[in-house]
Amino acid sequence: MKITINDVAARAQVSKATVSRVLNQNPQVKEEIRQRVQQAIEELGFRPNAVARNLANNTSNMIGLIVPDMTNPYFPVLARGIEDAAHMYGYSLFISNSDNEPKIEREYIQRMVEQQAAGIVLISSILKEEQVTGLSSLRTPIVLCDRLVSGAPFDAVSIDNRQAAFDAVRYLIGLGHRRICHLAGPNFVQSSEMRKLGYLAAMEEAGLEPFYSNGAFHYESGVQQMEAILKEYRPTAVFASNDLVAYGAINVIEDRGLKVPDDISVIGCDDILFSRMSRPKLSTISIPAYQIGVTAVKLLDERVKGVRSETKNVILKHELVHRETCSGEDRTYGF
Amino acid sequence: MKITINDVAARAQVSKATVSRVLNQNPQVKEEIRQRVQQAIEELGFRPNAVARNLANNTSNMIGLIVPDMTNPYFPVLARGIEDAAHMYGYSLFISNSDNEPKIEREYIQRMVEQQAAGIVLISSILKEEQVTGLSSLRTPIVLCDRLVSGAPFDAVSIDNRQAAFDAVRYLIGLGHRRICHLAGPNFVQSSEMRKLGYLAAMEEAGLEPFYSNGAFHYESGVQQMEAILKEYRPTAVFASNDLVAYGAINVIEDRGLKVPDDISVIGCDDILFSRMSRPKLSTISIPAYQIGVTAVKLLDERVKGVRSETKNVILKHELVHRETCSGEDRTYGF
Repeated sequence: MKITINDVAARAQVSKATVSRVLNQNPQVKEEIRQRVQQAIEELGFRPNAVARNLANNTSNMIGLIVPDMTNPYFPVLARGIEDAAHMYGYSLFISNSDNEPKIEREYIQRMVEQQAAGIVLISSILKEEQVTGLSSLRTPIVLCDRLVSGAPFDAVSIDNRQAAFDAVRYLIGLGHRRICHLAGPNFVQSSEMRKLGYLAAMEEAGLEPFYSNGAFHYESGVQQMEAILKEYRPTAVFASNDLVAYGAINVIEDRGLKVPDDISVIGCDDILFSRMSRPKLSTISIPAYQIGVTAVKLLDERVKGVRSETKNVILKHELVHRETCSGEDRTYGF
Repeated sequence: MKITINDVAARAQVSKATVSRVLNQNPQVKEEIRQRVQQAIEELGFRPNAVARNLANNTSNMIGLIVPDMTNPYFPVLARGIEDAAHMYGYSLFISNSDNEPKIEREYIQRMVEQQAAGIVLISSILKEEQVTGLSSLRTPIVLCDRLVSGAPFDAVSIDNRQAAFDAVRYLIGLGHRRICHLAGPNFVQSSEMRKLGYLAAMEEAGLEPFYSNGAFHYESGVQQMEAILKEYRPTAVFASNDLVAYGAINVIEDRGLKVPDDISVIGCDDILFSRMSRPKLSTISIPAYQIGVTAVKLLDERVKGVRSETKNVILKHELVHRETCSGEDRTYGF
């Protein structure tokens, strides 16, 4: 015979609604009642059906995650932080790749809302300011990762991308470089644009002429951007929008018989796993991806439980990691 | 006023159960009826609640995925194949990392069953034969990736790991190598053990003495295994259990002032993104990870829809990829 919630209610001498509140960890249930219900559940061997529980609760214990692309090695680390924290807080995680397509992104958000996700972690690289604000009509809590929207009614976790880029370029300038180019990311992605602004600010502060191109956040883009730049410019240092782009640049440079860092220094951003494994090891800006993920779920959980109503923007610290791809400028190649 | 399933049934002049069958894409609904219900849904602007739909259906449109660790760059590609196919077939994907812990793995399976997942894709690197067979008491369909269990009542997709390893070692032997060591993976993981058996078979066939150690499927293990082996053995070639382990070996070799491939050849397995980006580019066995993921969902969907009852094991083709880390044996370092 299947044990139902009615059996538990009868045994514990409480209403069915009270059993439901205990199952949903409603904090307003008195401890004594909670224990009585818990005991009845154990004695009867009652196993609540998760789907029925969601329905009673009008929500689920699931969090949706939308990432641009899990095959970019930065995102699995962030997703891992989200997943570990989600399980710690008792949520399951469902996941979708948006491929940086606004249409797909909106479709997945809609689908997650329909499935009554408790909340959504959105690594939106693409939504425009006004689109982000439009999401506020949803009653499902959303936390943005890797982008901050001033004034938008969302919690957000990120690093200060502008400052991170500024630090990287200042580091190159400190090494004596003057001809520093930037392989920028897509101009519709906020973190990418912020990095470009940081680059431009550092160059301007030092009275240097900027030189950059826009591309995408992947290896092939790094190859193409570096090849194009070397046709018209002779940098002694490169600031790449992320580590994959940096590896594209390094391969183009070394395929021409030039050396990194002896001829051209290269610095990336992200600090993906490979950065420590490659030869030379990549100098980069380290982003605490795992910690961003953990923080995002913490913020989401506060919203789901309703313990905080005001919006919170958390900025985590980045770190400049000196490895083997940057050195002093010494003009060893021909000009 | 909220539109309900009753409104749709009334408008289409069918029963509520028929509307439910249409929503759940039951193939036994006549096309004419399906169209009438569809039209009523559109005219009324009815939006089915996914949770309620799951309950009615006693299942969900969600697939659970259990991976050992998404931060190993092999798995995001496989997961991406699973996700793309899942969405194509109309499923959502929820995801958990097992960290190769059988206890966590079982817990997640239990949780997914409780949430009435339509099916589970399990990349179990660890479950023993008898444990896998134990899973057959679940009514939720399960597809195994990257492992095959003869006689177990599960669908499975994998490559032939034994043959892949055999091919890699035969390739090294063909280049003239005789002192070929193997950095094996964990001895409780089936794909790892199969690769070791392939290595041993190729060595035995050529009348060569094997030399190997067991480790884990990550970079640090490659470093430790290579350091330990070089203390007591002088290989001219290394077959690593996967690409991350191969990079650990390469870094140990080159940190000693030896060259890859001039002094020691190295071949990996997986063909992760970085294999094409590193200097030197890694020679490896390419596993069609994305295709494994797509195939797994296809098999699962057949089971969910009940169009096939017999078990199916699919073996996809691996491929030897010649890049820059293997060359002929020429004994350039001292012995």
